[in-house]
Amino acid sequence: MVTQYLFGVPVETFAVTAEVPKGTELPYFSQEKGMTFTCALGAEDIVYGLGETMRGINKRGGRYISFNYDDHNHRDDMPSMYGAHNFIVVDGEQTFGAFFDTPAKVVFDVDSDGSGQLSVACESSDLRLYIVEGRGAYDIVRQFLGIIGRSFLPPLWAFGYGQSRWGYKTAREVSRVADKYREAGIPLDYICLDIDYMDRYIDFTVNRRRFPKMAEYTAGMLERGLHLVPIVDAGVKIEPGNAVYEEGVQNGYFCKNRDGRDFQAEVWPGMTHFPDFMQEKARAWFGGHYQFYTGLGLEGFWNDMNEPAIFSTEYRKKDAPPDADRGDPDQPDRHIADFKDFFHRLDDGRHISNYKVHNLYGAMMTRASGEGLSKLLDRRYLLFSRSSYIGAHRYGGIWTGDNASTWKMLRQNVYHMPSLNMCGFLYSGADTGGFGGNASRELLLRWLAVSVFTPLMRNHSAIGTRKQECYRFRNTEDFKTIISLRYRLLPYLYSEYMKAALRQDMLIRPLAFDYPDDKKAREIEDQLMIGESIMIAPILEPGVKGRIVYLPEPMTEVRYNREGFTCMDVGAGERTAMAPLNTVVFYIRQGRLVPVGEPVSNTAEMDLLDVELLGSGTVYEQYVDDGYTKACSLERCVLQRREQAEG
Amino acid sequence: MVTQYLFGVPVETFAVTAEVPKGTELPYFSQEKGMTFTCALGAEDIVYGLGETMRGINKRGGRYISFNYDDHNHRDDMPSMYGAHNFIVVDGEQTFGAFFDTPAKVVFDVDSDGSGQLSVACESSDLRLYIVEGRGAYDIVRQFLGIIGRSFLPPLWAFGYGQSRWGYKTAREVSRVADKYREAGIPLDYICLDIDYMDRYIDFTVNRRRFPKMAEYTAGMLERGLHLVPIVDAGVKIEPGNAVYEEGVQNGYFCKNRDGRDFQAEVWPGMTHFPDFMQEKARAWFGGHYQFYTGLGLEGFWNDMNEPAIFSTEYRKKDAPPDADRGDPDQPDRHIADFKDFFHRLDDGRHISNYKVHNLYGAMMTRASGEGLSKLLDRRYLLFSRSSYIGAHRYGGIWTGDNASTWKMLRQNVYHMPSLNMCGFLYSGADTGGFGGNASRELLLRWLAVSVFTPLMRNHSAIGTRKQECYRFRNTEDFKTIISLRYRLLPYLYSEYMKAALRQDMLIRPLAFDYPDDKKAREIEDQLMIGESIMIAPILEPGVKGRIVYLPEPMTEVRYNREGFTCMDVGAGERTAMAPLNTVVFYIRQGRLVPVGEPVSNTAEMDLLDVELLGSGTVYEQYVDDGYTKACSLERCVLQRREQAEG
Repeated sequence: MVTQYLFGVPVETFAVTAEVPKGTELPYFSQEKGMTFTCALGAEDIVYGLGETMRGINKRGGRYISFNYDDHNHRDDMPSMYGAHNFIVVDGEQTFGAFFDTPAKVVFDVDSDGSGQLSVACESSDLRLYIVEGRGAYDIVRQFLGIIGRSFLPPLWAFGYGQSRWGYKTAREVSRVADKYREAGIPLDYICLDIDYMDRYIDFTVNRRRFPKMAEYTAGMLERGLHLVPIVDAGVKIEPGNAVYEEGVQNGYFCKNRDGRDFQAEVWPGMTHFPDFMQEKARAWFGGHYQFYTGLGLEGFWNDMNEPAIFSTEYRKKDAPPDADRGDPDQPDRHIADFKDFFHRLDDGRHISNYKVHNLYGAMMTRASGEGLSKLLDRRYLLFSRSSYIGAHRYGGIWTGDNASTWKMLRQNVYHMPSLNMCGFLYSGADTGGFGGNASRELLLRWLAVSVFTPLMRNHSAIGTRKQECYRFRNTEDFKTIISLRYRLLPYLYSEYMKAALRQDMLIRPLAFDYPDDKKAREIEDQLMIGESIMIAPILEPGVKGRIVYLPEPMTEVRYNREGFTCMDVGAGERTAMAPLNTVVFYIRQGRLVPVGEPVSNTAEMDLLDVELLGSGTVYEQYVDDGYTKACSLERCVLQRREQAEG
Repeated sequence: MVTQYLFGVPVETFAVTAEVPKGTELPYFSQEKGMTFTCALGAEDIVYGLGETMRGINKRGGRYISFNYDDHNHRDDMPSMYGAHNFIVVDGEQTFGAFFDTPAKVVFDVDSDGSGQLSVACESSDLRLYIVEGRGAYDIVRQFLGIIGRSFLPPLWAFGYGQSRWGYKTAREVSRVADKYREAGIPLDYICLDIDYMDRYIDFTVNRRRFPKMAEYTAGMLERGLHLVPIVDAGVKIEPGNAVYEEGVQNGYFCKNRDGRDFQAEVWPGMTHFPDFMQEKARAWFGGHYQFYTGLGLEGFWNDMNEPAIFSTEYRKKDAPPDADRGDPDQPDRHIADFKDFFHRLDDGRHISNYKVHNLYGAMMTRASGEGLSKLLDRRYLLFSRSSYIGAHRYGGIWTGDNASTWKMLRQNVYHMPSLNMCGFLYSGADTGGFGGNASRELLLRWLAVSVFTPLMRNHSAIGTRKQECYRFRNTEDFKTIISLRYRLLPYLYSEYMKAALRQDMLIRPLAFDYPDDKKAREIEDQLMIGESIMIAPILEPGVKGRIVYLPEPMTEVRYNREGFTCMDVGAGERTAMAPLNTVVFYIRQGRLVPVGEPVSNTAEMDLLDVELLGSGTVYEQYVDDGYTKACSLERCVLQRREQAEG
């Protein structure tokens, strides 16, 4: 049961799509000092949720600030990342969910001081607070997913493996990446184009010298089964002759500064204006401009710099020291004052500073793009964004931002996935191998073995770091093995994604959600449930060839290496599983099945129905479609039956 | 068996103290491209050693550069830290140890590219290469420890708990720290004084305004059972009237630049000269100046900034971009050119650039201090350094440098300890709670539960970060519990340290060393053996109340909380152990004992012989002395017998 409690006159966030009955007496929380909500936690209570925040799956012990921010240094004590996902679930003496639906800053202190108190301080006194009650944490999350609308449905090719790097400067270089992958026999479905493809980093342009004849180039790649996925940044370059800039100025589609002029901020293209995505008309206008790309045959995009990130403004220089008036020592607020300096026009005519609706900016850009692409394309598009707010999950996925080539970030990827799923973001993944820093061969292989199981599986790295395309490392056969597992599992992974999305359920879950009465399972943070059949227990440390795994029930241990799948039934409890770098070990739940296909070099070659069944179950309900139809429904499921003789 | 292979005319490093026979035909390695030594590794081989480097206990898969460097950003891909510990052990198809005894840069590529090759590239063609052969990795390490001389023996109080922070500006503030600890009932043995105690950061001074009457102050603290431990930096401030500066100039005790003038570098005190610790006379002179401190009653020190760290020089400004000519993309060499710009005078009269003997600088400062203190004091001193080279372990310990308040750094602490032990550095530990960044209560408690078992147990943090003295957090009782465990274990920990040092053995070992035939144990990196009886399996992740542990044999599971010790015999294999934040779980090996004492508030109150015995053994050999005598020997061991009736 979900109930909403209304405070003040909230700005419409579009996060909740269902009608939710209003309550009068807020349960669970005491309201203190204005808009601070507190709740005493039981000693053993676990707190879930909060999507893209640092630390583990159990958020207890930390302090988190919803205030979208671009900072690549993902320290453990970093309170704010790129997204604001204000949904938490307390699981213990009292079990309930709470969604603090406000686009302004919110500070979640989840018993960081050992006082046993959960405290949620909302900066705005205008908010909707949704309380979710149900039969345990998992049921509560499903109810929450039920009110925020169905997750984005990407095309099948978006579940393939993608290669990306900031620094692919020419079409020739991109082609070479494709060639090298083909030579190495490593499957590939798409290559992302970072800001390098643009003409001086201007949105809705292609540099004609470095990427000549883009439409033909895109078509040629598509014939090879490869999609190109360009980046789109939030800021529109201020430059006479730039049609998007001129239209935006003419129509008042840009954010304004205090004296009513269009607000200026320096980002990649130099000085830019920020589209006012809070305006419905501005969204339609910006989203419509994706026609530039779709006209070139492009169907996949990533939206970046939409926290929005700011290098400098008219008022504050690049690398200026943090604002002197920062009230909160934990808040990375170099540009707090900037966000207070520019204004949106809401569709009801009110003007409001970005600071007050800050966390919606990226989400509204995603919505603009998604709505535009829905109109422009007769098939499903790929879209993922850096910044987000709950609600944006209906229009696109997210990646977890500018991480680094560290073992800690690999571990954080594992922690992030279930928390993001709780907040609706099913299509997600990390920059595999790490964005900043230099990836070792070992780290990349172990990371790929995790990304095999995340919907977005993209290898991405920053300019200036060690190049990390798989073919650059020795023994590319090992990389081919791990990535081929992704493709062999796609009949399952695609099916489970679509079923989860269509049922408004989670795809990736903590063990505690499937085994709520197992005290040991409740403490496991480095193993995950992937869909209805699979449990993973990835290796997250350097230099080891195995790890200890906890099995809450007897399972089938599946070992995949270049010889293919080997299955072995193993009992419940703790066990050590060895997995050298070229091997992935995962588990299939008792009585469940996993359909696996043949090796392919990309999704265009796949026959989702030509599967073999692994595991001890008898029937698997497989979602199947052409990979791009918009008419997705659970009616597209077919039953795969294991022959009794085989069993 | 140890054999030395001589190349060229090596600079004396003082690392090896034993006479080692010379060999002629180098085994195991092929010599390629000048001074690059390569060796093919077996698929399952483990490579140990390398002391203070990033990544896990098994160094395979990484690339490491011995070139001492001050960089607080301990990324996974950071090749150089503060120490150069060029000893490795290959354990597998071939099993041997190799010590590359050269103070110049050495690059260890331990199969980072998956080629199966170990490659060691020495920049200097003058080196001694020691090959160690024996019955397995542990035996090889013990043989190596046998030739490098006995580890430093600190006084008993150095095994107590210490509090430190960059930013204790006055004696009053330091006293308040002591008072607050006493009020909270948390044991404490020493407080470290960071650069704040000095007069304008000048070595061998005390700021009289902020620390008036230092001798009386020190004596007063000692009466309370508290030692003060001041920092000493490498650079000597250039300032007429500064006697140390004037003596150094007069006697030629400073490093020179190319044209023979004393080299200048900016560090904390402003422009300084670097003592030329390569000269025996300069060492005696610098070490003798510790009389300034011993005269004030001080007996413990930490040497810092001795890589040497450089902010700027006459030639290169602070924050200058890295040198354009950096040959190696992985090398953090902002000051490479500086190190080439200053010169030492060796005792044989030769002049040599710091670049060529770079890794000895910190070690020779440690030696200078240690030799000085040995002369000045009639009892054992405490000394630990940031920079080091093998050989320095005979004069002092090290801490693992300027880490951060992250879970990754806690894990790194666990990885570092056995690797440092292999290189002779028994007295070591990390900045508990983390130096940079803001520690959460949970992180600090989990970190303390690890530091309980490391010889150096110091809570240290940087100015500007969240204050992390234990009494600042809620429920200080939990901190008291964890730290009191340290004191209750001291009869064991002190005894095991002294026995390991006197026997030239390791104190902290990987499981593989004690269970070499156990394939699972060989892959465990997050559990450690501490002395002869204890195995620890610390919790290294946020938000969890337990973890899975692997027991290579049946053991006694000991649970310590505010109620004291609870023991339970448990079987071999994997098991889940729950440990809330206020509880430490550890294990005692079958047939072994651990003597534990009563709770005390500092080591001065301790009676090492008043112990109770935990575990299933019958006899424990306990090293006991007055805690400060210089006449340490294994003859001071007494046998503690368990009463049969009790068993």
